[in-house]
Order: sequence, then C-alpha cells, then structure tokens
Amino acid sequence: MNSFGHLLRVTTFGESHGPAIGCVLDGCPPGIAIAPEDFAHDLARRATGKTRHTSARHEADEVEILSGVYEGVTTGTPIALLIRNTDQRSKDYSAIAAQFRPGHADYSYWQKYGIRDPRGGGRSSARETTMRVAAAVIARKWLAQRGVTVRGCMTAIGDVVPRSHDWSAVEDNPFFWPCAEQVAELETYMDALRKSGDSVGARVLVVADGVPPGWGEPIYGKLDGELAAAMMSINAVKGVEIGDGFASVAQKGSEHRDVMTPAGFLSNHAGGILGGISTGQQVSVSVAFKPTSSLRLPVQGLDVDGNVVDVVTTGRHDPCVGIRATPICEAMLALVLMDQALRHRAQCGDVGEVAPRIAGTTSITDAKR
Amino acid sequence: MNSFGHLLRVTTFGESHGPAIGCVLDGCPPGIAIAPEDFAHDLARRATGKTRHTSARHEADEVEILSGVYEGVTTGTPIALLIRNTDQRSKDYSAIAAQFRPGHADYSYWQKYGIRDPRGGGRSSARETTMRVAAAVIARKWLAQRGVTVRGCMTAIGDVVPRSHDWSAVEDNPFFWPCAEQVAELETYMDALRKSGDSVGARVLVVADGVPPGWGEPIYGKLDGELAAAMMSINAVKGVEIGDGFASVAQKGSEHRDVMTPAGFLSNHAGGILGGISTGQQVSVSVAFKPTSSLRLPVQGLDVDGNVVDVVTTGRHDPCVGIRATPICEAMLALVLMDQALRHRAQCGDVGEVAPRIAGTTSITDAKR
Amino acid sequence: MNSFGHLLRVTTFGESHGPAIGCVLDGCPPGIAIAPEDFAHDLARRATGKTRHTSARHEADEVEILSGVYEGVTTGTPIALLIRNTDQRSKDYSAIAAQFRPGHADYSYWQKYGIRDPRGGGRSSARETTMRVAAAVIARKWLAQRGVTVRGCMTAIGDVVPRSHDWSAVEDNPFFWPCAEQVAELETYMDALRKSGDSVGARVLVVADGVPPGWGEPIYGKLDGELAAAMMSINAVKGVEIGDGFASVAQKGSEHRDVMTPAGFLSNHAGGILGGISTGQQVSVSVAFKPTSSLRLPVQGLDVDGNVVDVVTTGRHDPCVGIRATPICEAMLALVLMDQALRHRAQCGDVGEVAPRIAGTTSITDAKR
Amino acid sequence: MNSFGHLLRVTTFGESHGPAIGCVLDGCPPGIAIAPEDFAHDLARRATGKTRHTSARHEADEVEILSGVYEGVTTGTPIALLIRNTDQRSKDYSAIAAQFRPGHADYSYWQKYGIRDPRGGGRSSARETTMRVAAAVIARKWLAQRGVTVRGCMTAIGDVVPRSHDWSAVEDNPFFWPCAEQVAELETYMDALRKSGDSVGARVLVVADGVPPGWGEPIYGKLDGELAAAMMSINAVKGVEIGDGFASVAQKGSEHRDVMTPAGFLSNHAGGILGGISTGQQVSVSVAFKPTSSLRLPVQGLDVDGNVVDVVTTGRHDPCVGIRATPICEAMLALVLMDQALRHRAQCGDVGEVAPRIAGTTSITDAKR
Repeated sequence: MNSFGHLLRVTTFGESHGPAIGCVLDGCPPGIAIAPEDFAHDLARRATGKTRHTSARHEADEVEILSGVYEGVTTGTPIALLIRNTDQRSKDYSAIAAQFRPGHADYSYWQKYGIRDPRGGGRSSARETTMRVAAAVIARKWLAQRGVTVRGCMTAIGDVVPRSHDWSAVEDNPFFWPCAEQVAELETYMDALRKSGDSVGARVLVVADGVPPGWGEPIYGKLDGELAAAMMSINAVKGVEIGDGFASVAQKGSEHRDVMTPAGFLSNHAGGILGGISTGQQVSVSVAFKPTSSLRLPVQGLDVDGNVVDVVTTGRHDPCVGIRATPICEAMLALVLMDQALRHRAQCGDVGEVAPRIAGTTSITDAKR
Repeated sequence: MNSFGHLLRVTTFGESHGPAIGCVLDGCPPGIAIAPEDFAHDLARRATGKTRHTSARHEADEVEILSGVYEGVTTGTPIALLIRNTDQRSKDYSAIAAQFRPGHADYSYWQKYGIRDPRGGGRSSARETTMRVAAAVIARKWLAQRGVTVRGCMTAIGDVVPRSHDWSAVEDNPFFWPCAEQVAELETYMDALRKSGDSVGARVLVVADGVPPGWGEPIYGKLDGELAAAMMSINAVKGVEIGDGFASVAQKGSEHRDVMTPAGFLSNHAGGILGGISTGQQVSVSVAFKPTSSLRLPVQGLDVDGNVVDVVTTGRHDPCVGIRATPICEAMLALVLMDQALRHRAQCGDVGEVAPRIAGTTSITDAKR
Repeated sequence: MNSFGHLLRVTTFGESHGPAIGCVLDGCPPGIAIAPEDFAHDLARRATGKTRHTSARHEADEVEILSGVYEGVTTGTPIALLIRNTDQRSKDYSAIAAQFRPGHADYSYWQKYGIRDPRGGGRSSARETTMRVAAAVIARKWLAQRGVTVRGCMTAIGDVVPRSHDWSAVEDNPFFWPCAEQVAELETYMDALRKSGDSVGARVLVVADGVPPGWGEPIYGKLDGELAAAMMSINAVKGVEIGDGFASVAQKGSEHRDVMTPAGFLSNHAGGILGGISTGQQVSVSVAFKPTSSLRLPVQGLDVDGNVVDVVTTGRHDPCVGIRATPICEAMLALVLMDQALRHRAQCGDVGEVAPRIAGTTSITDAKR
Repeated sequence: MNSFGHLLRVTTFGESHGPAIGCVLDGCPPGIAIAPEDFAHDLARRATGKTRHTSARHEADEVEILSGVYEGVTTGTPIALLIRNTDQRSKDYSAIAAQFRPGHADYSYWQKYGIRDPRGGGRSSARETTMRVAAAVIARKWLAQRGVTVRGCMTAIGDVVPRSHDWSAVEDNPFFWPCAEQVAELETYMDALRKSGDSVGARVLVVADGVPPGWGEPIYGKLDGELAAAMMSINAVKGVEIGDGFASVAQKGSEHRDVMTPAGFLSNHAGGILGGISTGQQVSVSVAFKPTSSLRLPVQGLDVDGNVVDVVTTGRHDPCVGIRATPICEAMLALVLMDQALRHRAQCGDVGEVAPRIAGTTSITDAKR
C-alpha cells in the first residue's frame, strides 16, 4: 500500500537514509510539458536545512526524470522520478537502533514486521513526502491549465494563531504564516522552543480555487473522504477537517447551511463539498499536526528486549514538523483533485456543468480563516 | 466507487426510496456463523422511528441473506444482504424535486450527473448507511473471536458535552450518552430543538479495544488514513480525529509522546496508532457531524432553472443526525479493522507479536474522554 | 474478488441454488435508458431449458432493477440487478454432497475454504454468468451509441468445425452456428452425445466492430490482457486467443504483420490489438471450452474422508457447456471494452483520433474465421 | 496501469532507450534475504546479446536495490530496483520516428496518446520485461521456501516441435529446448531464418510444482484468469492455455476429467486448476508468441501524415522473440502464484489443507508435454 489514487496513481519508495527515494506517477495524461527544473521551487519550500527553524539536514533534492517524458513532454506512460539521498548520517541514529522512541513508529513497525530500518526512521520518515511534492508538481501544472490552483498556510503553531489572514504574506516568511506582523514574534517563539529541546504541534489550511462543481465520487470515493485519507497519510497528522470541521458540532442547521443565490453562495461552511462532490466553491481542508516526538529531552523508553532505557534523540529534527507540512498538504490536495477530475471525466465526460452554474462559485466567501 | 476495503470489500447499493437497499460483503473468511436475526440489534440501534428524537420514518429493516452463507455458516463466497424499503413516502419530496436545498447534495449531484433521484435524497441519503451497519455485524463477530471489540458514544450534541464518562450508561438512553445524569436535560434540549424546526451538530467517539500491535499498512494504507476516509464517507461528517486530534496542535512534544514501560503505556495521546500501525493500545477516533440541513425553517434556494425559490423541507428528518451515527461509526471502525487484520495476516502471517509485547497494551489509560 | 473492471465495475453474487443471484454495476455513466424488459433477449440466449441441447433446468430469469435507475434512466449511482432462483432441485445433488466429482471445483473449493455449498455447484456453477450477461446489456447499449457492436458464434463443437462462415445464420439455430447447412448434422451429433451420457468441448469466437483506435492500457491493463482474464473467468474455459492466436506460432513475421495502407489494413492477424491498444480493426477473441465434467457416465471419485466412491451425476447438465457460452463471451467482451473506453476518456479525453485515421479501420478484412 | 498484483504488487517504469528501467515491488513479506547478485542468473537467461540467436543489444543489467532491504533482508516496505540502460543506440531508430511499422505498437500508441517515444519502441519494448524477471527473483525465493518451484521451456519454434521432453536439457542450450538432440538442427534453422531477415513465432510452456491446493480466488480473481492476464501482458503474446487448453475442444468429458484416487490424480488435463483454484497438481500454462514484426525485409507502411512509405527496420532484433520469453513467462507465473498465496493466507489462514489431501497432489502425472 505504497500507492494511492485510482486513475492518477502515485507509488513512492525509499527510506530516509537509503540510497535514494523516488516515485512513479502513473495514469498521467500525455502532452504536459515537464522539465527537471520544474520541481525545484516546491521541493525547496518543503526542504529541511533552509532556515534554522527546520531540521538541519541538507538535501539537494535534485530530481532525475527516469521515464514517461519524451522531448520535454509527458507521453502517457509512467513517470518515474528519483532523488538520491546525499546527507545521510547514519551514526546519528545508531545508538537508538535497539530502542523504541516514545511517540515514534519504531515500536509499531517492529511489531508489524519484526524488523526495522533504524536509520533516520527508515520508511516512516517524513523524507518520503518529498516525492509527493515532486509528483504534485505535475498535477498542479495540469490543474492550472483548467483554472484550478492550490495554496496553503499555517493557521496555528502551538497555541499561536494568526491575528489576521493575508494570503500574500504566506510565501514571505519561513512559517507559511498569513500574518506578517507576527513573524518576528514567531521567530522568537521558535528559537526559545528549539533551545528548550521540546517541540509543538501545528495546524495547516490548504484550499483549492477554481474547482468546478461535480468532482468527487459518492459513496466511498467522496472528495472529502479521499482528502481525509490523503492528509492522514502524512506523518504526524492527527486530525482532518473539511470546511468548518469540528466547529460544525456546535452550529445550528440554520447557521451552517450555505445559502445559494443567482449571484453565488452566501457562505462556505461546507468547505466546497456536499455529498462528497465539489460544489464549485473553494475547497478547504484543515490538518492537525502533532508535535515532533524526536526531542533532545530525555525520556524513558523500552529496548527490543523489553528493558527500560533512557532515550535521548540527538539527530537533526524539526521543532515543529507542521511548518514544512504546508507544501505537503498542498501536494496531497492537488493529487487528489486531479485524480478525481480524471474519474469525473471518465464517467460523465468533459462537457462541464449540466445545470445552471451559480455565479462566482469559486470563493465568493473565500473563508476568512 | 460504491465499494471500500481492500480484502474485506463492502459494496453497497440502493436509494432512500427505491425498492431496496443492499450490500455485498466480499472476501470474508469461511466458517463464521451468521443468521438473519444477528442483524436486528445493531440495525435497531441505527434505525429511525424508535424515539421522538430521530426521524419518524419507520423501517422494518429485515435483512435477507441472499448468498455466501450455507447452513448458517459463511462459505468464503460473497455475502449479499438485502433490505426492502417499506416506508417510502415519495410525496413528501415531490415539491422539492426541482429545487436545490441549501446544505444538501442536491446541487452537487445535479452538477455531476445532470440527473438526480429526488426521493428522500436518493443515493445521498443516510439510508445507505444501514448496509454498513449490517455488513459490520459480520466483521464484529470475526473481530470478537480475536478479542477485539468496538463501541461508541456521543461526546457532544450541539454545545452540550458530557459531564462525566461512563461507558455502561451509553446503551441505556436514546442519545448514546455516556453521562446518565444529563439524559433528562438532553431530552428537554432536543424537544426544544425539534419544536424550533432547527438542528444541531454532534461529536461521536468510537474506540476499539484488544487490537493487537501491527495492524495498518504504511504509507497510503495507514490504519488512521483508512479510518479517516471511512468516517468521512458517512453523511454529514466534516472532521475526523485520531487520539488527541486537533488538541495535539497546542501540545508540546514532551507532553504528547506516550511513554512505554514494561507495565504498559502511560498515556494514549496517539489514539493507539503510530506510523499508521496499531500499537496495541485502544484505537480511538472522534468524528464531527454537521447539523442536518433539512429543516422546517424556510430558506432561500435555487431551482434547476436558476430562479430563487423558498425551500421548506416538510419530510421526516433528524434534528441531530449525529445521534444515530454512533452505530454507523462503530460499523466503519469494525470494517476497517477487519480488512487491515486480513492484510496484516497476508503479509506478515498469523504468528502475532514479534517483539516483547508491552503488558496491557489495550487500554491501560483507556482515554478519559 | 467477485468484482471486475476498473471504472465500470461488476460485482456478482449468488449461488446456483440459493435464493437469488444478482450483480451491482458501478461506475456507469448517467443518462442511459434502461427498462427491465431490455434484459430478456440476451438472457434468453444464455438460458438453459430452451432446447433439448442444454440443461433442462428452467429459469424464468426475470430481472428486478433495485437501484441506480430513476424514471427509466441511469443516474450514475450503482445499478443493482436481482434474479430470483426459481427451479432449484436440491435433491438432485444431495447424494454427492460428500463426494468430489472429477473435473469439478468441488475438491478445490473444499481445499480452499473447508466448506462448500454442494447444491448445484454453489458459487462455482455457471449460473453466476447470468449476471454478466445482464450487466452487459447496459454496456452494449452504451457501446452501440458509439458505433461499437459485439457478436459471437461457435467455431467448433467437439471435432466439428463450420464448413463456411455466415454471421447471419448464427441466431437462427440453437448452436450459434455460422453455417446453416450443418445444423441438422449437429442436431444428430448432439442427440447421440446426450444419449451416450458424455460431453464435448467447444470453441467460441467473439468479435467487436467499430472499436476506435486507442482503447487499452499498457502494460498491465492491456486490452488483450483484460480480455484474456475476462474470458478465462468463465466456467470451463481453458484457453484464449487474440487474432490468429496459437496459429501465430508457426507463422513468419512477414506473413503475420498486418500491412497498413491509406485504404485500410490489408489483413487482421493481430485481432485488432497491438501493444495492448486497439488499432481500429475488428477485435477478435477465440475461447476454448472444456467438455462438461458432470456426466451420467459413472466415474471413480473420492469422498471427503478420502474413500474411493462411484460418482454418478444425475442432475441436469449441458452436454456441451460451450453452446450457451457464446452470449457470455459476448458479455465479457462488451464489459471489458466499455471499461477501457471510460479509462481512455479519463486519461486522453474524448477528442478521438489524433493521428490520420486509416480508412475503414473497422473490419476491412473482417477475419474470414 | 503499469502495476499488477493485488497484495504483491509490481509497478514497472522505463522506456527501451531512456536513462533507466525499474520496478517497485510492494507488499512483500519481511524477512526474505536479498542481495544484488541474486538477480544475475535470471536476468542473464532473459538478456539479449548472449548468443547470435537473440538481439545484439548488450545490456549489463546490473540491478541496484534502492529501498526495502536492510542489512540484506526485506523489511516489508516497497522494494525498488533500478537498472540503467547502457547500450541505447537511438540512431538505429531515428529514421522510423515518423513511420508506423506494421505489426508494431507504433500506430496504436500514437492513436492513444498523440505522442510516442520512438527510440527502440519506447515503453512498448520488451525491455520492460527485464523488471518482471527481476521482481520475480524475490517471489521465487519466497515460493521456494514453501516448496513451490517454477520452470519453463520452449515447446515450438515456428513449426519445429520437440521430439521428446527432458527438463534436464532445457538450460543447456540457448533455446530452452527440452530435446537435446534437436539443438544442432535448431541452430541451423535459426541461422537460416536470421539470414533471411524474417522471424517466426514460438510456444512456451511454464509449470509450477509444489503448489498446494487452495490458491486462487473465484470468480474474477481465478488463478487461471490472472495467469491469462499476466501472460497476455507480455509483448507479442497472442494466446494462453491452461492444461490441455485448446485441445480440450475436441475432447470428450469422460476423457478430460482427471480421476482422483487416494494415490493421487490419474491425469492432469486441467493443468492443476479447477474452478479457478489450484488442485495441488502441477500448474501448467502454455503461451503463444507471434513472430517479431521488426524485420529487415522491407514492407509498406504509413507515416504520421498518412503517406505510404517503405519501412525497413535496421535495428537489433530477435528473429524469434519467444526464445527469451521463457524466463519472462516463468517470472509472471511466480509473481501471480505468490500474490495468490498471500491472498489465500489472508482469507483462509495458513493452516494448510482442510480436507484429506490426495497423495502426491503435485505432479503424479507431471504432464508429458
């Protein structure tokens, strides 16, 4: 189960400290222009080692296109992408090879397989998500040709939340933070956190604009269902919301239901999805990230023989793994949307809307959050 | 995409007011004793028309076993279950056949398919979930033979939350509420809500005890990922959490990570899943339900020609659709667990744990919530 | 694994002598007109009890549409079809419940599942194929709207082969035989065979005309690969050929390769498929059926305790099971083609041919066989 | 659709003359010892350039293990294998980039995708099958631990058939020919063929010994159905048979049915499969290969503008592509068997036979052919 998607199918492979990581993107339409340099921007946004607020591991993340592209254009055959791992430091992890770190997949992998690759978390490392971002570069190109764009930002780091929301601020700071005036404050917050040896959780919002109504497959291929699975497959994710999410619990029906007018929807509590199918409004997804479990703070753990041991993690880790997760969440949103778009085209054709389209169905009330 | 599960595969069919609903459960191991009367208990828990707090529609929900069972025992071939619809009142819905109700799948289905069955919501009705509960009866039997049990309760109705948590209270009130002393209060609350013509959201907690470590498939078949998709596929769900869920955002890593001792885990913030694989602790999932959109309160809507119309829904509806959702969430949890159990057996065999098992890995700290 | 198809997905259920057989057809485009009476013609072609040359079992085979069709038109939701079994005679089979009939699935089902439904072969009966024919009625309607038609005939019964090939003769005799002058001879042959208590094998040819170039997915979803699996999934099939099939073994490359001219292909040794993708020529598939193993002739067998027993099958059986297989092979061809058509539309759009189309690519050399 | 298998899942990528070919083997059980040198033997058997009877292209075929193996043992995570292409000669093919070679996938790929990689056939080249052989090395190891072995041989080259059948002769000649005394004759035959510029078809037999009864999933995941799809997915295959295959057509039921005795089956017309499930006898599959279409003999073709052109293929090609196909067919048999074995373990457990096992169910009558 290292693949996802039904028609646009992503298969990833590789361990944190193995020779390489890679992916195969299958089912991609022919005719999309792709060059090795197309991957640089999004991979850099996800990469560690760029600022002091993420892991110090430095990866060049140079993508080699092994197949599926001829003379710069996709051919419809599987696209294999490969990135060599270049900054592995296996020695960082050797001490804990026989230990189970609390909050880590060490113990569960060991229980499942009876063996684990301890180098940097092996397959359970967030290193794997690099390939999702790479694959999504192609999906984003295809979606953009259809007017669909995907973006994301942080909406909480620990207990800090944005005081205002300005999309244009997001790419100008290392936190994907939508409120410029808070950035200095966050720098201080993160510096103190890093010094303390502890970590915090985070909340990420990703949205898609321009999604036409009709994408999504009831009942078990619902757009929101697949988004939930896609987001939950990212390391450290503990919760997913569509639209108002858990806030819906305390709402009244008369408040939650989004009224339609010829001029558009008057609100977007639904997050752009009803009955598992896009409505034409902005699709919005929120994702909860737990705090990193790899801390310099010692903690009691077990070794593989069941003995109590002191676990101290000295490797390079993110004090807030959620920060770099923004481009990963965007990638998963893009990949799910493109897969659903292809499935919609298969069943219902390309003819577009069949009912009167509500004006401005994309983002009249482009959620304030 | 009316199927889910990889080895234990559920396919459902049927519309709210069509002749019947049904499902096919494929991949079920042979040798499980099943009788038609086994379905009654769980279906009654989910059924409408039992108390004044749910829709007045009365369905007998008698299950006919059409295949896959010989002399009372599953044979390994597909099990088809059929329930005839008996209390359809198509007239309730005829007035709104050409209207799009705000907050409903009416509009998105119309946009996708260019046609919709307006009778009781057609395929988008929660009527479909009956078959998930039926299919899960078989899964729960199989899981119980392995010591795995599944249960659920409400943890919020609107802004009301339980003052205490007592599992033994849950089945003694119509709200699956874990705090007996609040039941009278809830009755009053719901009566007032029903009279107002409005609705509220809800929050459901489902847990599985006895799950051995090792179930779940990284990366894209993670146990939590599949649970998220399964829950999000239920009508009206807008959010899913594993373990501490969104509360993890504000936590520190030193607080969130669950410490292991030879006597067991000291906490269960993770909700029993690390790296997508069960740890042996209690698996816990929380689900957010939006308030029902079908209200007696009039609202502005559009008709299929784009004209503004007044929408008044006069059919039978639930003022809090989340109430009946508890057994549905339980069903999805059971079906996902059994599918993962079979997949684990396929890849890793039946031999059980390979590492020293932590004592009492199921529910040492059976979450207080 | 009681489902097949990737986008157009057929799931069947039911045993030979259970209460009912049925299927769910998922992924079907909306807007196809379907009425219960549409199924009668093809089901009658497949049915037993129509002539003395097939099993005497008489089944009414009345199809009930349980879902997915509203006001006579498909809605895009799953279409469930149900047929009640009406002429079960369990007593015919009781004697052999504890025996393994040579050449039957009795023994292999028992070994796999440890249990089997002995009534009429249970799930392994060709009764199941009824639902494939029913599902294909819908596929054939959709294909016909695109100019694609499917037909079939017998090309061998035992060692008898057609002396000439006339498609117009096929539906006028009970053997789907393409040479009218041989029909009386075949009647005599089959009467003698039936009296002898023995059975023979058969060979069926099915072809599709009007298939545009481009359908089929390399590498593991090749059109020919999926046709091979589809045909081999039919009871009693032991071989499948595309185009010249096994005759290709002794051919030279200069003889086998089909020359293209602006006026069309000059031959069709390939059977309309190159590289797993349709060429626009007639798609042709040949299928080998083994002789029925249920014979009145006694044979030595084993019982479930390993003892040698005399097996005499007294039930109603076909002396040449291949005869009724013609409409079944047609059904599988239609279902595979429609699934591939949807997949092609998903990846490559509906725009049709991109290269200069060879004139008359459908059936210039409509193979002589 | 560049993946196959349900639990043991193979995804391949790469073009004939691209930078590399590779595969991802997902779902593999942990604990299998694998080293890079394990691949050499089987890859050499499949490779071109070893004798004058196959294409002169020389590929080193050195396998790099990119993931899924830690300290020489599989970990249960996806195993990625990579082979760099080293002997591409794009110039060989440049002349025909704008032409459609008769009998090739050139035309159908062009029609499907509107673009094709003309270098050496691109994705449609048999170069892709290298990765199937590589993946199967791992499957064969796992099967061997369970007593299951796979082997294959040629049973026809053009119109030449073996005069006798001796498995021990097969690996001692470049034709996988089971009759040593014919080898010199075949050398002469092939030399003459190569000189003539023409090619011939071939027939390959692959068998599996030691397969326990019970593997295979009715109805649409039948062992024989999946074998048919697997074989038909190999380049140039036009037909597949199980057991007696097309010879069954002319057989009587009394002749075809394999009689069971406490000492074993008395024959194996079924080829080890009944009802889609293995019987415990030798599984046997025959595969028909068409003659290579790439000939030095000129032929009329079309160019992409629809003009008639003379096509002369001057690249390096096999005069009988079927020769090297023997290890490829073996690979597909092994991969399908292992996938089915895992699926059987999932549904029915590992406990083995449930009914009295017939003595010597593997290969009492190890088919004479």
